[in-house]
Amino acid sequence: MRVGLIGASGYAGLELLRILLRHPRLEVAAVTSEQRAGQRVGEAFPAFRGLVDLSFVSADPAVLASRVDVAFTALPHAASAPIVRELRKAGVRVLDLSADFRLRDLGTYEAWYGSHPAPELVSGAVYGMPELYREALPDADLVAVPGCYPTAALLPLAPFLRAGWCADASIVVDAKSGVSGAGRKLDAGFLMAEMDGECRAYNVGKHRHAPEIEQEASVLAGDSVGVLFVPHLLPTVRGIISTAYVKLAGKRSSQEARALLEAAYEDEEFVRVLPEGATPALSAVRGSNFCDVNALVDERSGNLVVLSAIDNLIKGAGGQAVQCLNATQGWNETEGLTEAPHIL
Amino acid sequence: MRVGLIGASGYAGLELLRILLRHPRLEVAAVTSEQRAGQRVGEAFPAFRGLVDLSFVSADPAVLASRVDVAFTALPHAASAPIVRELRKAGVRVLDLSADFRLRDLGTYEAWYGSHPAPELVSGAVYGMPELYREALPDADLVAVPGCYPTAALLPLAPFLRAGWCADASIVVDAKSGVSGAGRKLDAGFLMAEMDGECRAYNVGKHRHAPEIEQEASVLAGDSVGVLFVPHLLPTVRGIISTAYVKLAGKRSSQEARALLEAAYEDEEFVRVLPEGATPALSAVRGSNFCDVNALVDERSGNLVVLSAIDNLIKGAGGQAVQCLNATQGWNETEGLTEAPHIL
Amino acid sequence: MRVGLIGASGYAGLELLRILLRHPRLEVAAVTSEQRAGQRVGEAFPAFRGLVDLSFVSADPAVLASRVDVAFTALPHAASAPIVRELRKAGVRVLDLSADFRLRDLGTYEAWYGSHPAPELVSGAVYGMPELYREALPDADLVAVPGCYPTAALLPLAPFLRAGWCADASIVVDAKSGVSGAGRKLDAGFLMAEMDGECRAYNVGKHRHAPEIEQEASVLAGDSVGVLFVPHLLPTVRGIISTAYVKLAGKRSSQEARALLEAAYEDEEFVRVLPEGATPALSAVRGSNFCDVNALVDERSGNLVVLSAIDNLIKGAGGQAVQCLNATQGWNETEGLTEAPHIL
Amino acid sequence: MRVGLIGASGYAGLELLRILLRHPRLEVAAVTSEQRAGQRVGEAFPAFRGLVDLSFVSADPAVLASRVDVAFTALPHAASAPIVRELRKAGVRVLDLSADFRLRDLGTYEAWYGSHPAPELVSGAVYGMPELYREALPDADLVAVPGCYPTAALLPLAPFLRAGWCADASIVVDAKSGVSGAGRKLDAGFLMAEMDGECRAYNVGKHRHAPEIEQEASVLAGDSVGVLFVPHLLPTVRGIISTAYVKLAGKRSSQEARALLEAAYEDEEFVRVLPEGATPALSAVRGSNFCDVNALVDERSGNLVVLSAIDNLIKGAGGQAVQCLNATQGWNETEGLTEAPHIL
Repeated sequence: MRVGLIGASGYAGLELLRILLRHPRLEVAAVTSEQRAGQRVGEAFPAFRGLVDLSFVSADPAVLASRVDVAFTALPHAASAPIVRELRKAGVRVLDLSADFRLRDLGTYEAWYGSHPAPELVSGAVYGMPELYREALPDADLVAVPGCYPTAALLPLAPFLRAGWCADASIVVDAKSGVSGAGRKLDAGFLMAEMDGECRAYNVGKHRHAPEIEQEASVLAGDSVGVLFVPHLLPTVRGIISTAYVKLAGKRSSQEARALLEAAYEDEEFVRVLPEGATPALSAVRGSNFCDVNALVDERSGNLVVLSAIDNLIKGAGGQAVQCLNATQGWNETEGLTEAPHIL
Repeated sequence: MRVGLIGASGYAGLELLRILLRHPRLEVAAVTSEQRAGQRVGEAFPAFRGLVDLSFVSADPAVLASRVDVAFTALPHAASAPIVRELRKAGVRVLDLSADFRLRDLGTYEAWYGSHPAPELVSGAVYGMPELYREALPDADLVAVPGCYPTAALLPLAPFLRAGWCADASIVVDAKSGVSGAGRKLDAGFLMAEMDGECRAYNVGKHRHAPEIEQEASVLAGDSVGVLFVPHLLPTVRGIISTAYVKLAGKRSSQEARALLEAAYEDEEFVRVLPEGATPALSAVRGSNFCDVNALVDERSGNLVVLSAIDNLIKGAGGQAVQCLNATQGWNETEGLTEAPHIL
Repeated sequence: MRVGLIGASGYAGLELLRILLRHPRLEVAAVTSEQRAGQRVGEAFPAFRGLVDLSFVSADPAVLASRVDVAFTALPHAASAPIVRELRKAGVRVLDLSADFRLRDLGTYEAWYGSHPAPELVSGAVYGMPELYREALPDADLVAVPGCYPTAALLPLAPFLRAGWCADASIVVDAKSGVSGAGRKLDAGFLMAEMDGECRAYNVGKHRHAPEIEQEASVLAGDSVGVLFVPHLLPTVRGIISTAYVKLAGKRSSQEARALLEAAYEDEEFVRVLPEGATPALSAVRGSNFCDVNALVDERSGNLVVLSAIDNLIKGAGGQAVQCLNATQGWNETEGLTEAPHIL
Repeated sequence: MRVGLIGASGYAGLELLRILLRHPRLEVAAVTSEQRAGQRVGEAFPAFRGLVDLSFVSADPAVLASRVDVAFTALPHAASAPIVRELRKAGVRVLDLSADFRLRDLGTYEAWYGSHPAPELVSGAVYGMPELYREALPDADLVAVPGCYPTAALLPLAPFLRAGWCADASIVVDAKSGVSGAGRKLDAGFLMAEMDGECRAYNVGKHRHAPEIEQEASVLAGDSVGVLFVPHLLPTVRGIISTAYVKLAGKRSSQEARALLEAAYEDEEFVRVLPEGATPALSAVRGSNFCDVNALVDERSGNLVVLSAIDNLIKGAGGQAVQCLNATQGWNETEGLTEAPHIL
């Protein structure tokens, strides 16, 4: 199957390209980059020398539609939707990694991102987390691939939200992310000299991933759930550790918590429930599409602690997108995604 | 004044030695290390070549008592108390960086650390956080220097606990620490090859600093306060970021929160209340005795978010110890502690 | 084909396991670790949970011989040779990642490593660098996989040594390596707290890889070549940058130098000659089996500067071993080794 | 003494500010930054909150001349010279950290940097390395503070150059630097995401510090000396490791080499000759004005290996500048520079 990668030169795009090259059923037929248009991929990014026989092109939906069956769009929000519209018009299936189709409520989108460039497509998009929306994926022509933080937060929380463990419709998510999550932003604060050894919270209570987590948490709980989302930057490149705190509605034990997780995920290939007492670690998921999860109950305070780890560039971006494509095609969801994490 | 440093070759000890060398009123008269006894300081640690004209000696309290007026003990818990007892018997003022005299309740100590080697000294020890116990320090002959995590957590929480903002006597502290906090532990998990790029929670809900935070939080609140303490390891060496979540007893605003912090700390040299919207960062405290703090109210969820940053090896260890010594002597608390943080 | 991995729990072993799992023609039938014997791979190393359905076993050559067709040995020198001997007696093809069979001259081996445990096998071993010894590999039953530094140094130097560019039979190799090269050594100097931000030379002029580089450089030059080898530790995990300095025998230009490299490597899959002015970078080879090379002439001083980059755990260890196995089997050398480097 | 810091907001400027604040004889009377003019220092750089009661101003030489006795200029080359000229006209002593006055030969300057903005001042500038030009400093009104790489390379080489050990007037300097050496340059290649774990050579044989090293090496040798200078970037922030290779003119031993170093530097406070076999390490100089050095002879190849380590932002920039000011004033050269290195 011929695939196109729109916005291939950003961090998410480059990592997705690595996955696409490895996928046994996909042929990368086009890669776009406005800044790099005309350059050979291997010239612009020497890591790819000898592996990709393509040049970046400018993103022309009509041309792309003639050359690819499926497109991954890895563009900034608002820039993505207009191209997605054209690709959809031309019948190309789209897996969109931007925020443009993740929020089902247009008002919420506009409050956080400004006016929507293609509102007519929102209702038809499927939220691309196969563990939650697998049944909708085979018919999906537009998949809204979830944000990295929402992926890390929602996967371990989902079974508890569904089971009604949450007391007061309020959850705290304290997340820690490597700097690749910010993309290739030319901001002095992200220079190695300023970021090495650094850690700090940012956008406390007002990060754009908060409404996305709230939307899906509310669906899972069957009721409106508020999320206090506090992201932190880590002095490394890849990975998210999410630690969520849930006030329990009743008395629960850690054993019950782990049993609920295990029941929910026993058939999932990419969600690994760790043994009792083990905490998810970046080193165990780095370079893979895994989401490692665990949970425990702090009986004294009546809190559930929900822990997870993902590679933000894979399960939090292109890996999840490919998992979705596999699901839409009826392929094994693990195709192209079996690479073992790199411990070192 | 002649000072001795007992347990000088560990990470906290070495950093304290740097401070002592810089202190205008102190002369380092003895440094001990059982493993390094007999070695010149500059041979064992080339960084100190040319700066320290001393050899490590074994810790003999009688000999030390004849050579120093004050001793800093930077030994593991349980190893510290017996030496502290001998030093106190000999009339040496002691600033103890171990956990041995931090917990006032012997039962609590024994539940977390095992039997206490010098229980008769516990009641006379002053908890060495000058911002909270300044009035007790001038008469203190035994100062229990607080743990690194408790320092980071308690300083920003103190004004809120005192003011009764906490709804349900329950606080969540999600802390992130550089690996120097673990000391020079020969555990493969702390090797650079395994720790670089790593992040994970550990000892969730059962870290030994939890009862210490609870003890002081309860004193501040005037009532029993429970703390759910969740520490994480950061892929860097120095510093702690503490993010605490407090369910508010009533309706409060971020403005009120910051006003309370500012009122509490306007005369403190080492606690800096950041401007609205600014988050404490390791880069701004690294290498200094500062604790940067801020707070905000998430009105939707009714939570107070309390943020802080310290250098665990300075305000979380030897810097705070020196601040305490300054206070006991009636010196300016900043003596030896005016070094600016190193941004880079 | 069934393969065994002897010494699977070290850093080189774990990375090799990742490659073996990905290889389309290989089935991992046994993994050994004396320390971990009896543990499930995924319990000992959570990164592998769900990917490997095996337990570590103790290395019993007789049992292994009945279960595998080929064995990779990733043990320390001297520990490897006795097991290799037994495996060979049992007819198992062996790819040995230790130093035991790299040096052809027993006296040299003994001068650097002590007495040899299986000297009778030395003459039959093939030095496992396919770019230099491809023709010997199809018949090789014992492959001595080169050291990481020698791989990085020799590949870019080989064409110049063969062409007689070297003036005085003397070469300087200044190499920089990530800390994974030292293995999982419980030495305080390799703890994250002490190694982060560190860089230093070590074993100057007396590293055990020096005689290996000299052996092969001399073969290539057709005459005895001395190498002054100066390795340095880098504050990161993976990768080697090698910078070699060669006094030129005659007047040469950078254009000639690059032309010689390009001619030598135009048909090699894993050696990439970079464009003029581009320098090999760890980011472009990390996670891959590539060796990126370049060269230039400093006309003023009459020196040739020869640059290269590899991932020490792949082209410098298990990747090269698999490339050799592919060559012995007559498979495409790239099988299992096509993963793109991870830039981030 | 009142000092001004021109270009205070760059990396070298900020580190110099830390030193000036600590210096017992200096009062920082003005700090300039064109980009930050009008901002309080502690607002622009939160690390300095509470430590500096100044706002950045635009660099107006006339105003500065009325407020300061001495100025440190930490501006880019070519931007520095015009301001230096005005400050000198106004009688202000200047310590210039730019490249503008380091090269004595105008033609060389123009070949590497373009036309010189204040050529009339070049001949009067003193090269600010006290270990080499101490006698000239008391009368110096314009000090050209050396580059970071030249400082690291020249200090260990100087005794050997003076003693005529160099065979063929040609030296190889292979240097490794943390990224702070590049300054706050908004280049994607220096973002944490792209630089973490990276290492690569750059500007091979054509870095602007090469002619500076050659100039001083030639003065020391009493004859023209060529230097092949190959800098590399390290994946850390601070520090330079310099490894130089010198073909020996005659037979020499490591003992002789160390004896020569020791004789040359026995009275120097900031140059530490390490014991036999010890290699200079970033961890032992970080945060200090030390230059650690060592040397050994590789008898087989007839090469002298000369090793050194500095903190590029201190001995390679502002620390050396302050050492020079101390020397011009007749103060102890160590004033303000006695801070111990931070191992961690």
